[in-house]
Amino acid sequence: MNEQAKIDYFTEDGSVAAVNARISGDTHDRLADVMRSLVHHLHAFIKDVELTQEEWGVAIDFLTRTGQMCDENRQEYILLSDVLGASMLVDAINNRRPTGATENTVLGPFHVDGAPEYAMGENITKQGGRETCLFEGHVKDLDGNPVEGARIDVWCDSEDGFYDVQQPDVQPRHNNRGVFTTGPDGRYWFRGIKPVSYPIPDDGPVGQMLTKLGRHPYRPAHMHFIVSAPGFDTVVTHTFVAGDDYLTSDAVFGVKESLIASYEPVEDGETKWRTAYDFVLHRSE
Amino acid sequence: MNEQAKIDYFTEDGSVAAVNARISGDTHDRLADVMRSLVHHLHAFIKDVELTQEEWGVAIDFLTRTGQMCDENRQEYILLSDVLGASMLVDAINNRRPTGATENTVLGPFHVDGAPEYAMGENITKQGGRETCLFEGHVKDLDGNPVEGARIDVWCDSEDGFYDVQQPDVQPRHNNRGVFTTGPDGRYWFRGIKPVSYPIPDDGPVGQMLTKLGRHPYRPAHMHFIVSAPGFDTVVTHTFVAGDDYLTSDAVFGVKESLIASYEPVEDGETKWRTAYDFVLHRSE
Repeated sequence: MNEQAKIDYFTEDGSVAAVNARISGDTHDRLADVMRSLVHHLHAFIKDVELTQEEWGVAIDFLTRTGQMCDENRQEYILLSDVLGASMLVDAINNRRPTGATENTVLGPFHVDGAPEYAMGENITKQGGRETCLFEGHVKDLDGNPVEGARIDVWCDSEDGFYDVQQPDVQPRHNNRGVFTTGPDGRYWFRGIKPVSYPIPDDGPVGQMLTKLGRHPYRPAHMHFIVSAPGFDTVVTHTFVAGDDYLTSDAVFGVKESLIASYEPVEDGETKWRTAYDFVLHRSE
Repeated sequence: MNEQAKIDYFTEDGSVAAVNARISGDTHDRLADVMRSLVHHLHAFIKDVELTQEEWGVAIDFLTRTGQMCDENRQEYILLSDVLGASMLVDAINNRRPTGATENTVLGPFHVDGAPEYAMGENITKQGGRETCLFEGHVKDLDGNPVEGARIDVWCDSEDGFYDVQQPDVQPRHNNRGVFTTGPDGRYWFRGIKPVSYPIPDDGPVGQMLTKLGRHPYRPAHMHFIVSAPGFDTVVTHTFVAGDDYLTSDAVFGVKESLIASYEPVEDGETKWRTAYDFVLHRSE
């Protein structure tokens, strides 16, 4: 065997170099960089824990079952990414903003394009709304100026803890969803229900993993928002209900302190709650 | 928010601590250690490459399709582990041996329990054997003493590059498989065919990944061996055919220099090749 050949054989110490040496020089630069880093960290993990062959078998089985749990209505790999904090980490890295701008959090799997466009003040809850709540606030820029023409796309779960798309047989469609557009004052207001906490789907491999780690599958109550306006970075976020039991243990790590909103009881016809939250947009660079 | 609550919220810098803080104190110690390391390295990978949300989506899709490619005859996640060097790394960590003892390599997916037991000298190739080869050598301990009663379980591909289990309709069963047991002299000898190089299954996500990385799917020609004897560590290994084009680019990184065996042409009736390899066993600790 000549020297060149020796370099290419796999050894425990040289495992990363052996694998990464095989990436062709013609490979797309970014793909090559990502794969080299992946191999480096994958091997470092296996070495750090000195993974046994039995544990390797458990991992292969877990990854296989996670893929096989997926269908058009269920994405178990996104759940896995979520509960390991990977989804939030990718979101954080890709949405760094100056202090004062509204922070992002995970989109989640339940957003739907084409929700109804409503006039300010309308109620997005078309079925099952006992705890009616007024949501209001302003969309501003970092200098405090109102943002006109901001599109506010909102969605939340029902009082049973399910999104409409999880219960396709329940009518009407687009329950607890709507789109609003701000006027010159940047103000928004609409009615819906006070959201409730709910478990992520936990009847698959990811739920089994959470159980073994002593973790619960619940997300604290939240209203989803996508706030977009020409010339500004789009904010994909939630507002969380202050006081929720799961605020410090969100199964998907979505909570940021700046996104917690207080809900105050009111007496205003059928409206029982009011919550105010201002969105601060950062100009696109 | 009090100080305790602040600690638990997810931040880009504190992402690993936020996730690992959730592991319950009641968790099985080893599982907790493995998961903490996994989260550490997974987050380090995402941070190192600053994974984009689009790339995250590609990864979710790849992992999902890899799981969905698996069935009772195909294990795409093992292939993924193999081509990333993870299988060989786990094998290396779990089978460290003193210098001079025969080295391990990957078991592979084609071993079958219950192959026929043959007397020394018999031919394991029951169909399609043009390039008949004599395999011979000794099983010894580290001091050079013969090991009596060593069980030698061997299997290889056909001259078409397929294992019998990949062609269940081709008879007879157990083609190119057999089990031999050494006598007091520790010697083994049997006939088969000279193995040929072959591609791992490459019509799935792993094959697509190899293509994008400019990697071929071939394994160099090899004979599989499991050599076991009471009181010794079991050796799971191959011997590779010296001179094979793929020795320095095995798709699954299984080649070790000490496992390369020369094949010499002979003229002995129907036998056209001869290869000798001695297995050196390490006493169990």
